[in-house]
Amino acid sequence: MTMKFVAEALSLSEPAARRLYRRSILKQAFLPHPFFSDIEEAYLLGKKFGKYEEGTFIALSGGKAYVVRGFPKIKRTLVLSECVKRHFQDSEVAVEEKINGYNVRIVKIGENIYAITRRGYVCPYTTERARELINVEFFKDYPDCVLCCEAAGLESPHVQKEVYGERLDFYLFDVRNAKTNEAFSVQEKLRIAEEYGFRVAEVFGIWEGEELVENSFRVIDRLDREGREGIVLKDVEMKKRAVKYTTSYCNCSDLYYGFRYFNDLGRDFTLTRAVREGFQSYEFEKLGVEEVLSERERYERLGKAIVEGVVDSIKEVVETGRLRERARLRFRSREVMELFIQHMKRLAPVRFEYEGVRDGYHFLIMEKIITSTADRIRNLVSGGFW
Amino acid sequence: MTMKFVAEALSLSEPAARRLYRRSILKQAFLPHPFFSDIEEAYLLGKKFGKYEEGTFIALSGGKAYVVRGFPKIKRTLVLSECVKRHFQDSEVAVEEKINGYNVRIVKIGENIYAITRRGYVCPYTTERARELINVEFFKDYPDCVLCCEAAGLESPHVQKEVYGERLDFYLFDVRNAKTNEAFSVQEKLRIAEEYGFRVAEVFGIWEGEELVENSFRVIDRLDREGREGIVLKDVEMKKRAVKYTTSYCNCSDLYYGFRYFNDLGRDFTLTRAVREGFQSYEFEKLGVEEVLSERERYERLGKAIVEGVVDSIKEVVETGRLRERARLRFRSREVMELFIQHMKRLAPVRFEYEGVRDGYHFLIMEKIITSTADRIRNLVSGGFW
Repeated sequence: MTMKFVAEALSLSEPAARRLYRRSILKQAFLPHPFFSDIEEAYLLGKKFGKYEEGTFIALSGGKAYVVRGFPKIKRTLVLSECVKRHFQDSEVAVEEKINGYNVRIVKIGENIYAITRRGYVCPYTTERARELINVEFFKDYPDCVLCCEAAGLESPHVQKEVYGERLDFYLFDVRNAKTNEAFSVQEKLRIAEEYGFRVAEVFGIWEGEELVENSFRVIDRLDREGREGIVLKDVEMKKRAVKYTTSYCNCSDLYYGFRYFNDLGRDFTLTRAVREGFQSYEFEKLGVEEVLSERERYERLGKAIVEGVVDSIKEVVETGRLRERARLRFRSREVMELFIQHMKRLAPVRFEYEGVRDGYHFLIMEKIITSTADRIRNLVSGGFW
Repeated sequence: MTMKFVAEALSLSEPAARRLYRRSILKQAFLPHPFFSDIEEAYLLGKKFGKYEEGTFIALSGGKAYVVRGFPKIKRTLVLSECVKRHFQDSEVAVEEKINGYNVRIVKIGENIYAITRRGYVCPYTTERARELINVEFFKDYPDCVLCCEAAGLESPHVQKEVYGERLDFYLFDVRNAKTNEAFSVQEKLRIAEEYGFRVAEVFGIWEGEELVENSFRVIDRLDREGREGIVLKDVEMKKRAVKYTTSYCNCSDLYYGFRYFNDLGRDFTLTRAVREGFQSYEFEKLGVEEVLSERERYERLGKAIVEGVVDSIKEVVETGRLRERARLRFRSREVMELFIQHMKRLAPVRFEYEGVRDGYHFLIMEKIITSTADRIRNLVSGGFW
């Protein structure tokens, strides 16, 4: 394999590029297949490198290099009112819904649309769905751009949430130049979405200062009641870093998940979510935010998420002998399904079960087997020590 | 310094002992001082070594070596009923209160009593208190023995709990041969306590099988209501390993503490306590244990501990600029107090403030300054990111 196009695209020497590959910082980003016919070779950056974000994608197509920059990390605030003062000062700020799915960058390479995951892999499943849903006209008018979307729905291979409906769908939140990562303003993005018929992460309003804080909490209240994740604040010109803030519902739902797999997930996962509840409680009390949640309800919800997470997993292990995380996915093409199976097996320990064809779709069950938590539970319920 | 007595006591060569010292596995266990006049030299094992437990203490006194074996770890169960079946089978088992203090081994070396902490240090504060409270007659009759006690009370340098009263006191739970770690039976221990007037960790009863499980949960219920820590199960002959089990009250109280210092304590600390609540909820439901706690109360208590831990620390940082853990200790002798200050400064970042004499005692405030959590809070409440 030649790394020449990668070296050129990232302004490196060829030996330097090869060194990155040997050190597994550059990795292969796709499985060659007729479904990915436009791509000859493709690599991803597994780590931030120079100005290039983690997840940056570099493909060779028709002798030309395509670079799709990694999606920049959105910083999190735990004390919204102070963060608004310090970070946004007098900017006009859009309050946008944070969708709880997985981050996807959609681009056109050669003749077709490709969906790239956060880490930089071309995902066959997401790509098939993007080719079905995304209006390709957009790329005729904006060939250098990338659509940054959250892919969400029950039919997600990563995060299954009922609130976004059954079928996997794309919620556009940024339009960027693929090569420079420069973002269009919030208004331009909304205009583009309107023109090409893209579904967007809802923009609840544009405010500044005090009004911004008040309205943000009003939105948070509503999202919390509706079982949604939270908000992202963006200065409308997209010159400052975006900031995220989550609902108590989301923190608790994460905690349920975290305690369901308490021995497998990183320790930080549960700690950080629980700490967020403390900060929100502090700020709500301090600002006298009109709360949907009474303190007592917050406590109960939090405790319940934790206890039920553990209890549900114990019961699953006792009843079935193991712990599984299941997703049901649908594919138009059986070949794409097979490609997806290969793709996922490279990335994680998963099992698949083909359910057959229904309504013109191939249905596939994907199971992640959670081993460490299951082993721990098995030992404890049979009288072992911890 | 000669390590000859250590080498002999642990059946090592002298160079091997010196190697352990250079690798900081053997450490000096006391500060030479007239208050410790019987001890010429003393070392502790910072790690398990061969059959010798972590915290094993070796002293030279009057040309003779004294070995005090480290206190053996007590294993924890999260599913009491199954553990009883598997681990204790048909043994008669004593259900004893687990006191929430710090582990102390009390011995006589030369002419005086010495109190050795879990890690193996001679603590001046604990030693002064032990010389005040422990009936030295015991050591005339049992010169080779060690009294294994939990030191508890508000005036504790480590764990302050109101439930054990203000003054530091000793709760005897094991009498062991200092050199072999062989333990007296539960009945012998109780007889000794009676004879020499030692306060004990209460033995609620001796049961086996089904009855043991039922009564254990009855005791747990009561302890939970009283804000106590939990129980230790011991086969009365002390031939099997003891097993501990904690109340929901204790788990939540630990969680409050863990979240108060969320950035300083190990991540495992909070995760394990929260997981214990899940297992208890599962077992209580399964066995139909008559609970003091309804599920809803459990959730609320758990959530409250977490949120209040974080909120109380945020408020302390906002109001005082820092986070402190305070203890008030009293000393008979000002010299012992000065010795204790030196002793603690070697072990942890602490500050002291002398309050003066009252009722014949010197009062000392000891403060641990919690830095990492305080820094994190300071940053977040002024609008920083996480």
